[in-house]
Amino acid sequence: MSIMTKAIQSSLEFARSHHDRFLDELHEFLTISSISGDPVYEKEMQLAADWVADRLGALGLDRVELLPTAGNPVVYGEWLNPDSSSPTVMIYGHYDVAPVEPLDEWDSDPFAPFLRGDNLYGRGSSDMKGQIMACVAAVEALKLRAEVPLNIKFLIEGEEESGPSHLSDVLTTHHELLESDFCLNTDAGMVGPECPSITYALRGHMGCDLHVVGPSSDLHSGAYGGVVQNPIHVLSELIAGFHNEDGRVAIPGFYDKVREIDEAQRLMLAKVPYPEEKFLMETGAPFLWGETGYSPLERTIVRPSLDVVYFEGGSLKGAIPSKARAAIGMRLVPDQDPKEIYEQTSNYVRESLPEAVTWKLEFRYGFPAILVDVNTPWVDALTNALEAVWGVKPALIRIGGGIPAVIDLKENLGIDSVMTGFSLPDANLHGPNEKLHIPTWKRGVDALIHFFYNLADLQDQ
Amino acid sequence: MSIMTKAIQSSLEFARSHHDRFLDELHEFLTISSISGDPVYEKEMQLAADWVADRLGALGLDRVELLPTAGNPVVYGEWLNPDSSSPTVMIYGHYDVAPVEPLDEWDSDPFAPFLRGDNLYGRGSSDMKGQIMACVAAVEALKLRAEVPLNIKFLIEGEEESGPSHLSDVLTTHHELLESDFCLNTDAGMVGPECPSITYALRGHMGCDLHVVGPSSDLHSGAYGGVVQNPIHVLSELIAGFHNEDGRVAIPGFYDKVREIDEAQRLMLAKVPYPEEKFLMETGAPFLWGETGYSPLERTIVRPSLDVVYFEGGSLKGAIPSKARAAIGMRLVPDQDPKEIYEQTSNYVRESLPEAVTWKLEFRYGFPAILVDVNTPWVDALTNALEAVWGVKPALIRIGGGIPAVIDLKENLGIDSVMTGFSLPDANLHGPNEKLHIPTWKRGVDALIHFFYNLADLQDQ
Repeated sequence: MSIMTKAIQSSLEFARSHHDRFLDELHEFLTISSISGDPVYEKEMQLAADWVADRLGALGLDRVELLPTAGNPVVYGEWLNPDSSSPTVMIYGHYDVAPVEPLDEWDSDPFAPFLRGDNLYGRGSSDMKGQIMACVAAVEALKLRAEVPLNIKFLIEGEEESGPSHLSDVLTTHHELLESDFCLNTDAGMVGPECPSITYALRGHMGCDLHVVGPSSDLHSGAYGGVVQNPIHVLSELIAGFHNEDGRVAIPGFYDKVREIDEAQRLMLAKVPYPEEKFLMETGAPFLWGETGYSPLERTIVRPSLDVVYFEGGSLKGAIPSKARAAIGMRLVPDQDPKEIYEQTSNYVRESLPEAVTWKLEFRYGFPAILVDVNTPWVDALTNALEAVWGVKPALIRIGGGIPAVIDLKENLGIDSVMTGFSLPDANLHGPNEKLHIPTWKRGVDALIHFFYNLADLQDQ
Repeated sequence: MSIMTKAIQSSLEFARSHHDRFLDELHEFLTISSISGDPVYEKEMQLAADWVADRLGALGLDRVELLPTAGNPVVYGEWLNPDSSSPTVMIYGHYDVAPVEPLDEWDSDPFAPFLRGDNLYGRGSSDMKGQIMACVAAVEALKLRAEVPLNIKFLIEGEEESGPSHLSDVLTTHHELLESDFCLNTDAGMVGPECPSITYALRGHMGCDLHVVGPSSDLHSGAYGGVVQNPIHVLSELIAGFHNEDGRVAIPGFYDKVREIDEAQRLMLAKVPYPEEKFLMETGAPFLWGETGYSPLERTIVRPSLDVVYFEGGSLKGAIPSKARAAIGMRLVPDQDPKEIYEQTSNYVRESLPEAVTWKLEFRYGFPAILVDVNTPWVDALTNALEAVWGVKPALIRIGGGIPAVIDLKENLGIDSVMTGFSLPDANLHGPNEKLHIPTWKRGVDALIHFFYNLADLQDQ
């Protein structure tokens, strides 16, 4: 047994013999109702930040501090190896949690963590206080061996579940402090309890608001019904034209830069256990719908989509309205440029709307898709770590939504995130009775220990 | 000079010599802020009802009383001729006024009537306290001659400018008391100061609400964008299909019972001074729109129309919404049956919506169009009266909207309304700086005196 193997063994043993304490700490962390989306919980946000800082301090990290923001503080802590050639991993997390409404759908108090069978119930158990504590446990198990040649920087924010996050302000202000080789983000979950996962792609997002104005004020429909174009009709017609009969977005140029899925990707995705029935069950829709020629899973991750997420016009008073408004959200895939898509949309609107209305298309936000290079030592290190614990190669997966921190880190520090996690698909992340599957969580701690040693190994090579 | 002509002359002279007092009374009436749409004005509503009752009492009417309703009372007063063969005219009016917001667009206090040039400014001056006072003045001038063989019943309600009106309850409860040959409704206005008008047709109205449901709850657009049909898209597509390229309503059967306009009607309407420019100015729309082959005026009065008056779906949170909703209002022309149109709409929705959504179409209200027979002695009497004063034959006009009281009286008492009025198109009925053109109002009083004598003449024939 090599020295390194002995070191890993002792770290794994330490973690296993301290699981109960780690879980007790998680239990304590979960009692703090750190709901960032509601100003009522301001004190709890500070409490949670302090709790994390105290925990990182107890871990023996250097320079634990709260980095202030215009919103909730970001907790920072570092453990730097004297040898500057060691790789530096930033461990990302968020100490805030999603709202808990409707409360009556919870079987127990969301902030009184409750163990039932193999699951620990409570808001934040999986998303992502449990994930933070898995990282903390693994680092503590690692720290026994001070010689491990690795630099670790914790960055735990408090605004992931609410907008706007001030993470990017912190990243620019503390640019040098936060420099890292890559980020470990354990907020991406896994496909199933026996299927560890690495997420390598996220769709981008572009949002814009369309305002359509017809007559200068609301009009009596008796006096004017039949002589003016109704902005609700005009906007409806435009929206009806957003998709063609094949479910494809009809905006000219929209697919110009979309990479076609290749046979290898298709085969890989076909192995992911996400059949049509699962989508039907999750959405409650009577039938699925979408771009012909692609499976439901493909449509949500490798194909872009367009949804009008908001439409308002008129009032129940019943007049012909002078204006109508829609908010449009587009999920983008690699190489689609949000600004360019906005321009294409703008041209499309210009050419589609009749002269009888005026309009304005407001760009609201745009994030490109994220596609992480999987041919990196970091991804290899994680792949091997997950395989060492689960005995199977992790699934390389893509996600339909975005993870704001991944974009912020890429844009502000220029680093990629290696995305994984130990929450299961049925964990009810933002819903009632959120839970953490403890056996999976324990395997996660083991996998992270392997991962950190694998990273340290890189320096030796 | 016949006895009747002498009588008319003395009534006209009486009115002219008392114009100032009548206007002083109108001034007093206008100071009461009887806004029926706002519960804050409850006391003012009672004040206004009492004021009308007092005025009818002072007129020497018999049986002046307030008929209670679940809302504001209806003022009743009668002057019955002992000879039961005399014609009975019901004089309809409403003592409530429209809201005054936005107040800062008024040049003077809406309830401090203000004479500037030929116009009396104030909320209700034209709509319709001024019209009520024209009727009161004419009846007072007539009442000098107790022998005039005519029965008059005043019915002045207080809920015309707000919903719901309880007028029909009063009409059913006091059916016998209110029996009349026809109703004089002076709420319909006139085309221009030198163009007295009789309105003989109103469009009907059918309202329904459409609810579309797709997924069982709002969905994360990242996770599900591309696999479910978005209710906003589905509803937009349906609305886009409501009209074809000619601006015609595309619901099968919609035009089956619509009477085609004939050349005579077309020529008559072409004489009404309501050009395209006027519609453009009034609506503020950059361009007009509508069914090809019909003039703007024709489109608003002899052709039916469909408008989605309300559309809501989703939220600015940005998820794919589980549901969307629209309120539809259709203006109907004679022979279109609101219930039948609702059924056609329901069939159209059923055949148009995809299986991936569920839906419900709620019938909200339906009133058929009103078409008054102009070949009646009452219309002749009014025609001659208006011609006697203005020196020109009145325009026979149609109106695009409905007048609820006209429908209520037709449905509950089975009587037609003879619709005219002495408010001008620029009177700003529901807007700021509502005004009454006094010279026109004075001619109106004269015309009403002629009208009542013409009616009385009928008994003699």
